[in-house]
Amino acid sequence: MTDGGPPLAPRRSWLPLLESLRGYGREDFTADAIAGTIVGIVTLPQAIAYAVLAGLPPEAGLYACLAPLVLYALLGSSRHLMVGPVAVAALMVAAAISTYGPRFDTENHGAALDIAAVICIEAGAMLVLLRMLQLGGLVNLLSHPVIVGFVNAAAVLIFFGQIPLLLGAPGGGTGFAVITSLPDQIAELNPATASLGIGTLILLLGLQFRGGAWCRKLGFDLPDGHPVLRLGPLVATLAGGACVAVFNLDDEARVAVVGAVPAGLPAIGLPPLQSALWIDLLPVSALIAVVAYVESYSIGTTLATRIGTRLNANQELVALGAANLAAGITGAYPVAGSFSRSSIAFQTGARTQVSGLISAALILLALLLLMPLVAWIPHTVLAAIIMVSVLGIIDTHSARKHWRGHRDESATEIATFLAVIVAGVELGLLTGVALALALFVRQSSRPRLIVVGQVGDTGQVRSVRRYEVVTHARVLAVRIDENIFFANANPIEQRLLTLIGQHPDTRHLVLVCSAVNRIDVTGIEMLARVSRNLAAARIILHLTDVKAQVLRQIEAADLPRALTGQIFFSADQALRALDPGVTADPAPR
Amino acid sequence: MTDGGPPLAPRRSWLPLLESLRGYGREDFTADAIAGTIVGIVTLPQAIAYAVLAGLPPEAGLYACLAPLVLYALLGSSRHLMVGPVAVAALMVAAAISTYGPRFDTENHGAALDIAAVICIEAGAMLVLLRMLQLGGLVNLLSHPVIVGFVNAAAVLIFFGQIPLLLGAPGGGTGFAVITSLPDQIAELNPATASLGIGTLILLLGLQFRGGAWCRKLGFDLPDGHPVLRLGPLVATLAGGACVAVFNLDDEARVAVVGAVPAGLPAIGLPPLQSALWIDLLPVSALIAVVAYVESYSIGTTLATRIGTRLNANQELVALGAANLAAGITGAYPVAGSFSRSSIAFQTGARTQVSGLISAALILLALLLLMPLVAWIPHTVLAAIIMVSVLGIIDTHSARKHWRGHRDESATEIATFLAVIVAGVELGLLTGVALALALFVRQSSRPRLIVVGQVGDTGQVRSVRRYEVVTHARVLAVRIDENIFFANANPIEQRLLTLIGQHPDTRHLVLVCSAVNRIDVTGIEMLARVSRNLAAARIILHLTDVKAQVLRQIEAADLPRALTGQIFFSADQALRALDPGVTADPAPR
Repeated sequence: MTDGGPPLAPRRSWLPLLESLRGYGREDFTADAIAGTIVGIVTLPQAIAYAVLAGLPPEAGLYACLAPLVLYALLGSSRHLMVGPVAVAALMVAAAISTYGPRFDTENHGAALDIAAVICIEAGAMLVLLRMLQLGGLVNLLSHPVIVGFVNAAAVLIFFGQIPLLLGAPGGGTGFAVITSLPDQIAELNPATASLGIGTLILLLGLQFRGGAWCRKLGFDLPDGHPVLRLGPLVATLAGGACVAVFNLDDEARVAVVGAVPAGLPAIGLPPLQSALWIDLLPVSALIAVVAYVESYSIGTTLATRIGTRLNANQELVALGAANLAAGITGAYPVAGSFSRSSIAFQTGARTQVSGLISAALILLALLLLMPLVAWIPHTVLAAIIMVSVLGIIDTHSARKHWRGHRDESATEIATFLAVIVAGVELGLLTGVALALALFVRQSSRPRLIVVGQVGDTGQVRSVRRYEVVTHARVLAVRIDENIFFANANPIEQRLLTLIGQHPDTRHLVLVCSAVNRIDVTGIEMLARVSRNLAAARIILHLTDVKAQVLRQIEAADLPRALTGQIFFSADQALRALDPGVTADPAPR
Repeated sequence: MTDGGPPLAPRRSWLPLLESLRGYGREDFTADAIAGTIVGIVTLPQAIAYAVLAGLPPEAGLYACLAPLVLYALLGSSRHLMVGPVAVAALMVAAAISTYGPRFDTENHGAALDIAAVICIEAGAMLVLLRMLQLGGLVNLLSHPVIVGFVNAAAVLIFFGQIPLLLGAPGGGTGFAVITSLPDQIAELNPATASLGIGTLILLLGLQFRGGAWCRKLGFDLPDGHPVLRLGPLVATLAGGACVAVFNLDDEARVAVVGAVPAGLPAIGLPPLQSALWIDLLPVSALIAVVAYVESYSIGTTLATRIGTRLNANQELVALGAANLAAGITGAYPVAGSFSRSSIAFQTGARTQVSGLISAALILLALLLLMPLVAWIPHTVLAAIIMVSVLGIIDTHSARKHWRGHRDESATEIATFLAVIVAGVELGLLTGVALALALFVRQSSRPRLIVVGQVGDTGQVRSVRRYEVVTHARVLAVRIDENIFFANANPIEQRLLTLIGQHPDTRHLVLVCSAVNRIDVTGIEMLARVSRNLAAARIILHLTDVKAQVLRQIEAADLPRALTGQIFFSADQALRALDPGVTADPAPR
């Protein structure tokens, strides 16, 4: 199996960056440098904010933009995906820390960082393992409605979870409890913090949704959503930090600030090898790995489609796995592709993964030079930044579309959403996957059996209900619209016998198997039983349009011998051959 | 929806016995009386043996043949199914008693009976509830390989579990531990018990497998498996009891005997309403209900098929549910259809459920008159009876057939078998169901995409690999042989783009959807994405043979608008219309 050339062939190299750099010129570098710089600037406040959201020190977020981003740029097959800290992974890490932190708090508040590191290493190793075992397809078990329900619920949890921080109230944390405790939180707000936070929130919301209009009033012509408007969070962070520093808000008005952050590069090291910790975190790590991969792949594919390329799913497993392994040993926390930053890279004209390398360089520069300033950043401003950015990942469009066209899948989506809100991210996600699988099995177990007839002389057979077709009194042709397997063998049998009862003149029952792609042991035994039962009533059972794989399966089980009738090439041929008034069609079997 | 008359219509009455009694004459009664008497005689030792196997007093087994058998005869739609104590249910009850007995042993050894009664009532109520909620289809989740693996493992566990009793060794019990402890057991055997037991075992095995030959040597002409040979267990019980009584084996040689059994009818009453007990037993009860129903339905269907009738699945739920509820309030234990006794009823010419009523009357007579004799029956003889009768339910024929034709399902069967042996009946059965579902989802997630072409002028399209077909350089027709859903949307997309890469001249991609019975949101989004991607490469995407339900789903999601090409009536028509060298076919869409 070979693949053709671009635009639709997946990229196959082990170091896709080299492929991207073929014919790379000065112009390409300029484009990448501009895009990379803008993304880097946008990343700074986000990285700090998400680290705090995850319950980790601010520098962990910045470290997540160094080694992981560089490794993804080298190994990833997307030219635009910006890997680093993201909101949903931060929420999942926060949940893991609040669950397992108290149990493993052996090293004086280092437990949170240890837990994050273990999750990184386990998630990264699992992704690489999925690639090695050729099991990448497992991630397909996350259906789109489950993902939408999960991400929307995570965004809602994050949004409400930030309100106490925005108001300077003592609460905080994650999960459903935050939402129910909001009335109490609001009663205990800190006026200075709340004013600063709500002001920042209004400013950022305005820039996000009416930025273009505001700029036009000021005489600039920028459309809504222009990358320059994305600098709002940085401006807000600087302005908030300046306010605190100038008016001494942290001491005078007790506005909580980020505090001292160590400058320079992260230390490289492994988390403690406590087996209980590693074993307990395995399920969380698996979920984070799957969510990180599915989200990254979906964002990367969307952007790749726009320039007519594709991602290599296997290469993405390796790249994201390596990025997370790197995060694990550099004091960072689980990374994934960021929807907002990847979109900015695309919009600002990034051409290759070099833009990611430039972003990483900028973060490195900030780590070396800007850390003294970071200490002044108020938490309320970070909360406002997070609240505005998670609004961007809520997908009401898909949710509405699913509700209109696919009620049952929409029900799964809503159930996933509610389960995540009430029972937490992990249990909620598992509930969603289980519901999606149950729905699929349930639908498969309710097969449609369609009575068909000939459509003129087209050689086609179609439903007697939807088309003007020719039928024959003594020949009943039924199309089985489902794979025949244990969960539907009994219903198919009962429905067939009911149809025979409704057509008392039937002497030949023709089962049209054009839509039967597989049959299992239980299904074959059912067909053999039907054949015997019909023989007792002097009705002959025939099959038509049997696919190669189904034919192999029924031949292995000796069904053709148990069959009273024939296996015809096509339904049309069977109907011609069995009706005595019409000559048999000499088509090949 | 109405049903036709016999022979294939299911029976619909709420009291199927009345239907069976239409035109019932003296001759029918004679036949039923003979069959019922033979079955009753066979039942006696089996009922006592299975009660002991379940860890219950012997009379519980006899009580299980009274009210439950009568209720099933009134309500059941099978004319031959003999409901009462069976080996597999006894094993499951034994496992439940050994797990939960110690926890609830409040009433001085009455706990075992209480547990059995709670299970009966819960299982019976669940079966009736399944009927009321129209959820009888749930039991279809037990695929045939899972049932075969489960029943075979249960039989093996029972067989080995009886060896200590056969040898008069102190052990016993259920589960894997019995098998591993066998060497120790054998070391501690009781010589008199072991001789009596092994002698009985050889006698019964001989009667079962060479009975015909032995009889011919004695001058009688009876075929192997003749009903008279089934009286062996009764003869062995009588002979064993006589030995004990005459040689005073219970005192002299410490041969364990059944002991005093109360004569007369069971007392009617409810088990104690301890909520903890009822809640803990719910999962066990659910499993026993499902196993009892599936096994009974399968035995009943096999026998009904032979006389050209069918069972009514819904009526069977009610009948078996009522039988178990009756068992629960009359001191019995969970009942199901017995394979051996139902077969005997069929072979000895039973015509209606009246044969069951006569068996019940015989058991009642025994309860009133024979109980003093039962006290002498040695346990080793009962063990031999159980060992021989469970050999009859081991189904190596199906297991071998599955292994030859269906390796993956055979793997599920073997895994179920091993899981039941090692982890016990409940966990093992659940493992089997989970594996069967996982296998089904996995197979569905690996779709076949078949490149097709026109077969002469038959109007049919078939695989280019298997048939001599006409193809066109610029038109690639691909049949998707699976429902399109979340678990296979990505693989289908990748495979389609690979096929396009292999056919670089393609200008039209025709997806033949004749085998696509359902499509979900994830699948529709994939098709829309493929359509966009192909449009960028100037390839037009068409669909053909779209079924009504799929068309509704894709129209609800607005896919036809996103589609660059058309939706054709048939693949044949699409290929004619799209190939410029051929005139378009004016067939109806």
